[in-house]
Amino acid sequence: MPGLSHLVFTHPPVDALFAAEAQVRAMLRFEQALARAEATVGVIPAAAADVIATVCQAADWDLDALAQQTLLAGNPAIPLVKMLTQRVARLDAEAAKYVHYGATSQDVLDTALVLQLQAALDLMEAQLRPLLELLAALATAHRNTLMTGRTLLQQARPITFGYKVAGWLDGLLRAQGRLTRLRAEALVLQFGGAVGTLATLGVQEPAVIAQLAGELQLPAPMLPWHGQRDRLVDLAAALGIVCGNLGKLAHDVVLLMQTEVGEVHEAAAAGKGGSSAMPHKRNPVTATFLVAIAGRTPALVHTLLAGLSQHEHERAAGAWHAEWEVLPELCRLTAAALAHAHDLLSGLEVDRDRMRHNLELTQGLIFAEDVTAALTPHLGKTAAHQLIEAASQEAPRLGQHLREYLLQLPEIQHCLSPDELSALFDPARATGLSHYFTDAVLARRRLALNSEQ
Amino acid sequence: MPGLSHLVFTHPPVDALFAAEAQVRAMLRFEQALARAEATVGVIPAAAADVIATVCQAADWDLDALAQQTLLAGNPAIPLVKMLTQRVARLDAEAAKYVHYGATSQDVLDTALVLQLQAALDLMEAQLRPLLELLAALATAHRNTLMTGRTLLQQARPITFGYKVAGWLDGLLRAQGRLTRLRAEALVLQFGGAVGTLATLGVQEPAVIAQLAGELQLPAPMLPWHGQRDRLVDLAAALGIVCGNLGKLAHDVVLLMQTEVGEVHEAAAAGKGGSSAMPHKRNPVTATFLVAIAGRTPALVHTLLAGLSQHEHERAAGAWHAEWEVLPELCRLTAAALAHAHDLLSGLEVDRDRMRHNLELTQGLIFAEDVTAALTPHLGKTAAHQLIEAASQEAPRLGQHLREYLLQLPEIQHCLSPDELSALFDPARATGLSHYFTDAVLARRRLALNSEQ
Amino acid sequence: MPGLSHLVFTHPPVDALFAAEAQVRAMLRFEQALARAEATVGVIPAAAADVIATVCQAADWDLDALAQQTLLAGNPAIPLVKMLTQRVARLDAEAAKYVHYGATSQDVLDTALVLQLQAALDLMEAQLRPLLELLAALATAHRNTLMTGRTLLQQARPITFGYKVAGWLDGLLRAQGRLTRLRAEALVLQFGGAVGTLATLGVQEPAVIAQLAGELQLPAPMLPWHGQRDRLVDLAAALGIVCGNLGKLAHDVVLLMQTEVGEVHEAAAAGKGGSSAMPHKRNPVTATFLVAIAGRTPALVHTLLAGLSQHEHERAAGAWHAEWEVLPELCRLTAAALAHAHDLLSGLEVDRDRMRHNLELTQGLIFAEDVTAALTPHLGKTAAHQLIEAASQEAPRLGQHLREYLLQLPEIQHCLSPDELSALFDPARATGLSHYFTDAVLARRRLALNSEQ
Amino acid sequence: MPGLSHLVFTHPPVDALFAAEAQVRAMLRFEQALARAEATVGVIPAAAADVIATVCQAADWDLDALAQQTLLAGNPAIPLVKMLTQRVARLDAEAAKYVHYGATSQDVLDTALVLQLQAALDLMEAQLRPLLELLAALATAHRNTLMTGRTLLQQARPITFGYKVAGWLDGLLRAQGRLTRLRAEALVLQFGGAVGTLATLGVQEPAVIAQLAGELQLPAPMLPWHGQRDRLVDLAAALGIVCGNLGKLAHDVVLLMQTEVGEVHEAAAAGKGGSSAMPHKRNPVTATFLVAIAGRTPALVHTLLAGLSQHEHERAAGAWHAEWEVLPELCRLTAAALAHAHDLLSGLEVDRDRMRHNLELTQGLIFAEDVTAALTPHLGKTAAHQLIEAASQEAPRLGQHLREYLLQLPEIQHCLSPDELSALFDPARATGLSHYFTDAVLARRRLALNSEQ
Repeated sequence: MPGLSHLVFTHPPVDALFAAEAQVRAMLRFEQALARAEATVGVIPAAAADVIATVCQAADWDLDALAQQTLLAGNPAIPLVKMLTQRVARLDAEAAKYVHYGATSQDVLDTALVLQLQAALDLMEAQLRPLLELLAALATAHRNTLMTGRTLLQQARPITFGYKVAGWLDGLLRAQGRLTRLRAEALVLQFGGAVGTLATLGVQEPAVIAQLAGELQLPAPMLPWHGQRDRLVDLAAALGIVCGNLGKLAHDVVLLMQTEVGEVHEAAAAGKGGSSAMPHKRNPVTATFLVAIAGRTPALVHTLLAGLSQHEHERAAGAWHAEWEVLPELCRLTAAALAHAHDLLSGLEVDRDRMRHNLELTQGLIFAEDVTAALTPHLGKTAAHQLIEAASQEAPRLGQHLREYLLQLPEIQHCLSPDELSALFDPARATGLSHYFTDAVLARRRLALNSEQ
Repeated sequence: MPGLSHLVFTHPPVDALFAAEAQVRAMLRFEQALARAEATVGVIPAAAADVIATVCQAADWDLDALAQQTLLAGNPAIPLVKMLTQRVARLDAEAAKYVHYGATSQDVLDTALVLQLQAALDLMEAQLRPLLELLAALATAHRNTLMTGRTLLQQARPITFGYKVAGWLDGLLRAQGRLTRLRAEALVLQFGGAVGTLATLGVQEPAVIAQLAGELQLPAPMLPWHGQRDRLVDLAAALGIVCGNLGKLAHDVVLLMQTEVGEVHEAAAAGKGGSSAMPHKRNPVTATFLVAIAGRTPALVHTLLAGLSQHEHERAAGAWHAEWEVLPELCRLTAAALAHAHDLLSGLEVDRDRMRHNLELTQGLIFAEDVTAALTPHLGKTAAHQLIEAASQEAPRLGQHLREYLLQLPEIQHCLSPDELSALFDPARATGLSHYFTDAVLARRRLALNSEQ
Repeated sequence: MPGLSHLVFTHPPVDALFAAEAQVRAMLRFEQALARAEATVGVIPAAAADVIATVCQAADWDLDALAQQTLLAGNPAIPLVKMLTQRVARLDAEAAKYVHYGATSQDVLDTALVLQLQAALDLMEAQLRPLLELLAALATAHRNTLMTGRTLLQQARPITFGYKVAGWLDGLLRAQGRLTRLRAEALVLQFGGAVGTLATLGVQEPAVIAQLAGELQLPAPMLPWHGQRDRLVDLAAALGIVCGNLGKLAHDVVLLMQTEVGEVHEAAAAGKGGSSAMPHKRNPVTATFLVAIAGRTPALVHTLLAGLSQHEHERAAGAWHAEWEVLPELCRLTAAALAHAHDLLSGLEVDRDRMRHNLELTQGLIFAEDVTAALTPHLGKTAAHQLIEAASQEAPRLGQHLREYLLQLPEIQHCLSPDELSALFDPARATGLSHYFTDAVLARRRLALNSEQ
Repeated sequence: MPGLSHLVFTHPPVDALFAAEAQVRAMLRFEQALARAEATVGVIPAAAADVIATVCQAADWDLDALAQQTLLAGNPAIPLVKMLTQRVARLDAEAAKYVHYGATSQDVLDTALVLQLQAALDLMEAQLRPLLELLAALATAHRNTLMTGRTLLQQARPITFGYKVAGWLDGLLRAQGRLTRLRAEALVLQFGGAVGTLATLGVQEPAVIAQLAGELQLPAPMLPWHGQRDRLVDLAAALGIVCGNLGKLAHDVVLLMQTEVGEVHEAAAAGKGGSSAMPHKRNPVTATFLVAIAGRTPALVHTLLAGLSQHEHERAAGAWHAEWEVLPELCRLTAAALAHAHDLLSGLEVDRDRMRHNLELTQGLIFAEDVTAALTPHLGKTAAHQLIEAASQEAPRLGQHLREYLLQLPEIQHCLSPDELSALFDPARATGLSHYFTDAVLARRRLALNSEQ
């Protein structure tokens, strides 16, 4: 068992996909499919393939021995193939000749990894869908909820909460698109034999490749990719972006949950977010985990990207091995992030009153841009900007609302009637294209949804 | 002037694209297009737009003042807009009201960056094309050049040099595909005003966006992306992969250039690759630069990816600023890498004789897999493997070629005739699908080429 | 000229230290000291050393040619040594024999780098001292300024602003200690000749090393470090920590400057922190730059650390070259951060009233821990915690201050008198060891200061 | 169970130190010491401390429940303190009042981490000692073993293998020094209560801190370090450097093991380094693992360094959590690297004959620098360099050894006798200060050893 916080940083179903047992299972799927493909093409006897396939379905493999022997052998495929061959030999010495026929360790390890990644992507895409649904529902529910937009952590001007959520959703729709694309482009069969030329298959044409790809329902690449690992890096970057986008969402939530802001809260739950020292606290918990995950994943992408140039010749002495635990770790963290995001959003409490209250905090200053814009046709932009900039400093000094202060100024009275001026301080009239943008994202989301079905 | 090695790490034309002058130019392109778009839609007077456009074409901007004022203003857009407004005002006070109308600093800086990145991609794609041509020519020329494949830096079994080059080409074709895709997906207009809602444009519909996008010939995004920076990360990762793939190629070249291997060499040139201490040396130079670049770029991608989650609310207080120099740096390094790769490949000397000679270094051991395969139908895989493993240790001990040693063994004589055995040691018969794979990549390259035209 | 924002990310005096001219100067300092040291030991004629030394003091070196020739030669030392030899030869053909005698390119480039880094550290340490002074003054001035401590961005309980500043100071004192240590440990002479054995010096003992080290006032290492680059990584990490610590300080400032918090502000200055769109805004500027720098430096440290294992044999083919621009860049960013931090702190406005006001925001909730502690002897910790946790939810629901709510509760009345209860809500009594810790750091700072003098 | 390769990337004893059980044990050590310290100082009753201490020694804690509750509570300390309090309450309700008295979650988690790191450093330092011994023995045994020094992966000139090993040893001695220093500087008590001010301890002086530090035998810091995490980063960087230095060593070994070089080999062992496809292969295994680890650790250091600036105020909402698994992972990888390095070196086979043979590969070219040096007094450096550079190209073209070629040249005959010339091609005379440097490192190693005892 790892440390006490391990559930924070994994999603158990994805964890299981990369456990030793599942890895052995994926490797044996390759060996079984290989035997079948080779038998179909006529490279090995059909009877041998049957025996191999049967043994590959056995469940009782000595995982500890395999892990231990990996230290000597240099990779887990060598001991597994040896173990498999021995078990096949016990049933049929002739069949044992054809175990792993023409393949190399990296074929089975890379293809097993691809199968595991595929299953992990299945899970993550299944996590993403309800998450996007939650976001769409939140954006819809808060299409008209007024709040302050903030730039550089300063109140800037009104937006709607729906628009803010639409921004999160927009980023995740792109992230989803990347995963869909990479499932097809990046997750391809690895099969090349010792140096990628399939030389010992004894065939002059690549029929076995197509057959094996068919057995495993994986695309066949144009070329084995022993030393060209960019597809994996591409996938890693896409996962890193998922975590980064979720981290942005969570970061926004943490900031909105600040005592002094208080606009959203994680769902209250017995035992959630308390402090061992301070009974009054309602800490961000899930959002905090998401920020932590987004703090860890870029480094894993980096490791894989930096590895690209270190794959020597037809198989790397180290850069390949460095991938083994890093890609699974990245999947675990991404799936954990998706699960946390679902928890966070499904119970997110939005405090419309506090949002409205905070819009008043600056006593009208956040409408300064609107007033400036309204004055511009009368005074020109520079003069209007200067007038309002000065007023924005003077009104707070006098403890006055900007509107009250401006009402008294003759320059203003010349340009705007009191009603016109007051209307400029109505946040509901100041949200610009918030609705338009929100609706656009929601429409795209529905489109994406329809195309999935 | 930066350090003496700066030309190693940049490509002057790309350098120029990100210099202050070009940045100002790109920012003014935005301001000019904005004025025109707003005039077309009727948001500002056509006469004002004309004056603004005229001033935007001026060449003499005080770059030092802009850089200095950036320190106070917080970004370069604020002083430039101020300077622009003053110059417009000198011509037409009325027009000055409409400079930068409805826009915010990030609109102009992000869009200018997009325009600069677009020009950088143009250049890089123009660099990539002849590079792919060189690789295709090299693969074609060496379709039949026999050499040793190496795994874990050990001689493994024969391949062709053409097949090796095809692997490099394959990776770069994918890299090219990514750039083409991201040019369309990632390089989009930024236009949202203060908080991304275009609230002060005074319009209820987004006509200006479309018009502005049209002026700049950029796609309009569904939503402003002030805080959702995944597109830039996606592009950064694609550039990182270009450098990584080129680094792999260069790393292979450095290894092949080793004194003890000597299979390829950088082109000799007066003054190239010498040593200040050792008159006999012929060092890798260009390949070394490529390895160095591939060692630097992953960190830059990391910075951008890590920034994703740090973009607070509607504009970041730091994460945005961290992008400013990093994306240009990444472009400079990538373009430098592309230029170095072209240099490297255009003069690469391939020593067929040395490749052939090295195939003999192990005295037949690299054909052990072939002999094993030939014996498997007779002895079974395990027994064959054990027999040849033992012979692979015994023959060198006796100083014998593996073929000579095996010829004497009765077990071998039972299974294979001397001619059959000798044929197994012919490297030309041992390259498996090297031709097939090489041809496949070359065909795809031609296809890609045709679709470009 | 680089982009418009380059002054944000450099400190001009440090920039100058790593410019081509300064690099040439540092390289010539090495060549001159080498000639002198060799003459002193008797390895080369004294007359030759004199001529070489004279030429090394010339100012007019063709930097563009050197940069250009670096592309062919593989490093800048080769063309510079060649240029130097030619100039010496023009004066004295005999002396030209002894230029760069026994040295290799890496000797001159590494030692020049060390000299440049030393000058950069001088500058940075000179920047650090007044910064620590500012922090000490700030901590002293605000020893009694009450404010809210915040954990997980929630108000937790009172501290003093002096204590907060002491925390920043504490981290920077450690950072200063690291730089002092590494100046002695990491910045050492490189001198080993072709493969680090000084074989062509023609001496059997290392007298030249000591003499050369003396000339340059650098420590002599036990062994040349061509391939063992950990000292540079150690220094890089220390610089990265300086930036990280300053980034934490700036991040705190950005958060304290939020509209809803408003406890500190960057100094107002004409043109500072305004918005191109919003006349009322007072954005963080300098703090934002510090956050951006702290977002960029870890990647540079990463590049150097990752390079450690890639230095092959007696000189690396790429990993060495990857250091060339990265260490200067790290120095530039660190010095820029130190300059920004000085700007930020020298004008920081602290709003004591707003701090006091924010202490009341939770209506007494941040004293919940104190009340719990006071009740614990009476009720036990669990019961006290539960009582106050419930009250912390109920009081806000009723719109009551926690103190008022508790005054009515019979359980409370049993345990505490109204005066005792009220005293628990006095923030000045609730800051614990804030003074003690602040004073401890200030004392250590004085101690460090004295030992410097 | 993790994937099949997990033993490659961990060292089981260190793994155990960071498992949930050990973490709970370390946390309870803190709670027990806290109770004792508070009782000693008189803050809590001695009887309560006794009960708490007794319960803290219990072994049966529900680790699964703790991990599960961490998801809700936000960190593992909250559920553990709750569980502990309940168990204490069952024995003594009065004592339960004083569990975790005055402390906060981060106090117990950070201090527990420090205790775990201390134990991990104990283990790693115990691993380092025999490793340094192996290196010292290897350097001694091969003090006179001649081999080629290589720069930029080209043969440069002779060194001894002892000198090469001394370089590895030199770097590791520095790495050891860093760990020793950081054990004292970085591993300090964390104890500050809610916001680091120990406010609820009810004391005005820090006696409990000193007492607690004494109980745990940890240094007490001047200030709690909730938000100032540079000590951990410093330690992380030192661990990263250990892995980087070992990676350099392993990288050298992988290169020396190349088929074409063959100068060293990993110890042969049954089942070690074979290939599933190629019976003749003797792959690097352990060295490969070391390279892989060195490829993974920089990213972990990066994560911690990047976190520095993200620790908000008095406790971070994410950056703290991001540390939890990363530091243990870094320890696991470092300890695994140390174990692999021991394996690698304890069985390393050094092929003196092949080293000698490779010195002849260039047919004298690697002595070109020596000949140049010998000619310099006669011809001047430039002329000598040009003469030998030309000869270095001509001799190979004629298939001649450089010595034979030069013997015929009149320019040479003028300057050097045949015996003088021949002596220049004796590698044993060409190793410069190899012995001197080797002996210096060995002496320092003995010194370090003595000071340990």
